[in-house]
Amino acid sequence: MSAESVVRVPEDILAEKVRRHLLSAGAQPHDADETTRALMHASRHGVDSHGVRLAPYYVGKIRAGRIRTAPHRVLTSTGPCTAVLDADHGLAHAASYMAMQKAMDCARVSGIGAVGVRNSNHFGAAGAYAIEAAPRGLLGLATCNAEALVSLFGGKHAFHGTNPFAFAAPVPGRKPWLMDMATSSVPFNRVMLYRALGIPLPYGVAVDAAGETTCDAQKATCLHPLGGPEFGFKGAALAGLATLLSAVLTGAAFDPEIVPDSDPRSKEIPGNIGHFFLAINPQHFVGQAGYETAIARYVSAVETATPVDPARPTLVPGDREWAEAERRRATGIPVDPDTARALLI
Amino acid sequence: MSAESVVRVPEDILAEKVRRHLLSAGAQPHDADETTRALMHASRHGVDSHGVRLAPYYVGKIRAGRIRTAPHRVLTSTGPCTAVLDADHGLAHAASYMAMQKAMDCARVSGIGAVGVRNSNHFGAAGAYAIEAAPRGLLGLATCNAEALVSLFGGKHAFHGTNPFAFAAPVPGRKPWLMDMATSSVPFNRVMLYRALGIPLPYGVAVDAAGETTCDAQKATCLHPLGGPEFGFKGAALAGLATLLSAVLTGAAFDPEIVPDSDPRSKEIPGNIGHFFLAINPQHFVGQAGYETAIARYVSAVETATPVDPARPTLVPGDREWAEAERRRATGIPVDPDTARALLI
Repeated sequence: MSAESVVRVPEDILAEKVRRHLLSAGAQPHDADETTRALMHASRHGVDSHGVRLAPYYVGKIRAGRIRTAPHRVLTSTGPCTAVLDADHGLAHAASYMAMQKAMDCARVSGIGAVGVRNSNHFGAAGAYAIEAAPRGLLGLATCNAEALVSLFGGKHAFHGTNPFAFAAPVPGRKPWLMDMATSSVPFNRVMLYRALGIPLPYGVAVDAAGETTCDAQKATCLHPLGGPEFGFKGAALAGLATLLSAVLTGAAFDPEIVPDSDPRSKEIPGNIGHFFLAINPQHFVGQAGYETAIARYVSAVETATPVDPARPTLVPGDREWAEAERRRATGIPVDPDTARALLI
Repeated sequence: MSAESVVRVPEDILAEKVRRHLLSAGAQPHDADETTRALMHASRHGVDSHGVRLAPYYVGKIRAGRIRTAPHRVLTSTGPCTAVLDADHGLAHAASYMAMQKAMDCARVSGIGAVGVRNSNHFGAAGAYAIEAAPRGLLGLATCNAEALVSLFGGKHAFHGTNPFAFAAPVPGRKPWLMDMATSSVPFNRVMLYRALGIPLPYGVAVDAAGETTCDAQKATCLHPLGGPEFGFKGAALAGLATLLSAVLTGAAFDPEIVPDSDPRSKEIPGNIGHFFLAINPQHFVGQAGYETAIARYVSAVETATPVDPARPTLVPGDREWAEAERRRATGIPVDPDTARALLI
């Protein structure tokens, strides 16, 4: 986004615009609220790829009949600490918050909770759900699979999605520890951005049609898994782990089976993306006081570690995002022209 | 290991030698069995860094009084799906198998099980424990923290351990899906090997005393997290996740607090390494039949994906290890001269 083409919108106004945009497409009020909540989490924290720019994308899928506006979500407890949710092809955000809530309810009573979701859709930023655990004194994990954009290690074509893992842990008197990362080095829209800007990609993030590493954004057809051409077997295994938990364990489609939006069949075949949520209660492990002491000590050690560049302290995961949220609270959230046209007029 | 200096020993003979070596240092029979089991898992599958060469290392720690031969391990259930184990500074392998067994018992009855371990020691290869879940029809995860060898992203000195994640999933009629990976690109003993061989390191795996990326094995002081100088914030977050689960959640020491063996204080201060084990029962999610169909379909898709090099098919995580185990069953397990001197004479 170049500075001149971007408008900056206060958070509450932008959230209301997103909500109205979703309602105008027929989303039910609760679903519109939950989708807005997830998109605003990302936009607030600077993760614009998973922020409000997705609202018109979801609306397009609603209008094409690929996301249902009146889903019949069925949450089934399967034990004291487990449940499955059939999301019935509705907006994924309400389903994901519901599943995360169930995982947290289990964890509060019984120490841990795991909920798998099937028949769902793109859920935005995984961190939006993991972070729910922190204010409740729990640790939270969220993962999902997605349409194929990342090669296997030594594979020629896209196989896994960018399959993220998000994990949040509460820290007393401080913003939570929050990891939210794709299992590729970069998201595919980074490739698109570099292509538009005409600049070379970093080494080892993308492959060309022959499956070879390329730094030419024009030639990149899909992404390397994290670790690149040398150590990408690690990123590929992590992407596979996301698929095992989100799809194989839940009954969702696995990544190469997910019909991409670009495929005309996507109109007829409903998406069946899977998610997996986990919540852990420290009271059932080291105990509340022991946890609070330990996490504070650990986070403090990260913050005070000696940096290579004295001007750039080592960061606790999430700190970059919390700082960006602070800035955006003051200056508004940047909205690109296409999204502004869809949401703000 | 050069070919002429290595002896090859049949698996059962080697296992007995390891067991006797541990017994000779005073390890109790059950503990010697379990340590042998874990080391043989690694040696059998080609992970020599975590195999029988560790037996003399553990014996050294027993003789120095840093590993207790008569630990009083206390396993405390804290709910239907959770438990904590105080390993009382004994050999970590018996404690880890005990904790994994408890997690699996919880998962079999209640769908999921999570067990945290504190006051433990180096447990060898994480995969040795995760893999236990597969023949029982469960998915298994094992992780631990370890002494500081890996820098933070932008950090000058070692902070996290090589903190591995292992995950295993059963596949009907086939060897399990098995990931077992450090959250650095390479283990530190790879740096030592390259130093001995006088060859340059791959780019982006190690840092020098100034915290800068180096390919000079002589100058490398610690490792980059997975992702290297560009994307190492991902590997560092994963290493942090291992520490959160294994140490912060359990009451173990976190990585920079673990007194390395090289420190004279290590004689007086017992190690307090932590582990975390998780088992998941597919019957409480998609169901047994649904799981078996899905994992078979997923694994088959990985195996039949188009490789870049037709001579090198894309591999399911673990397949390289199963193939190596097959070879070693025929040819014996290679033992380096130092280890042979300790174990075989």
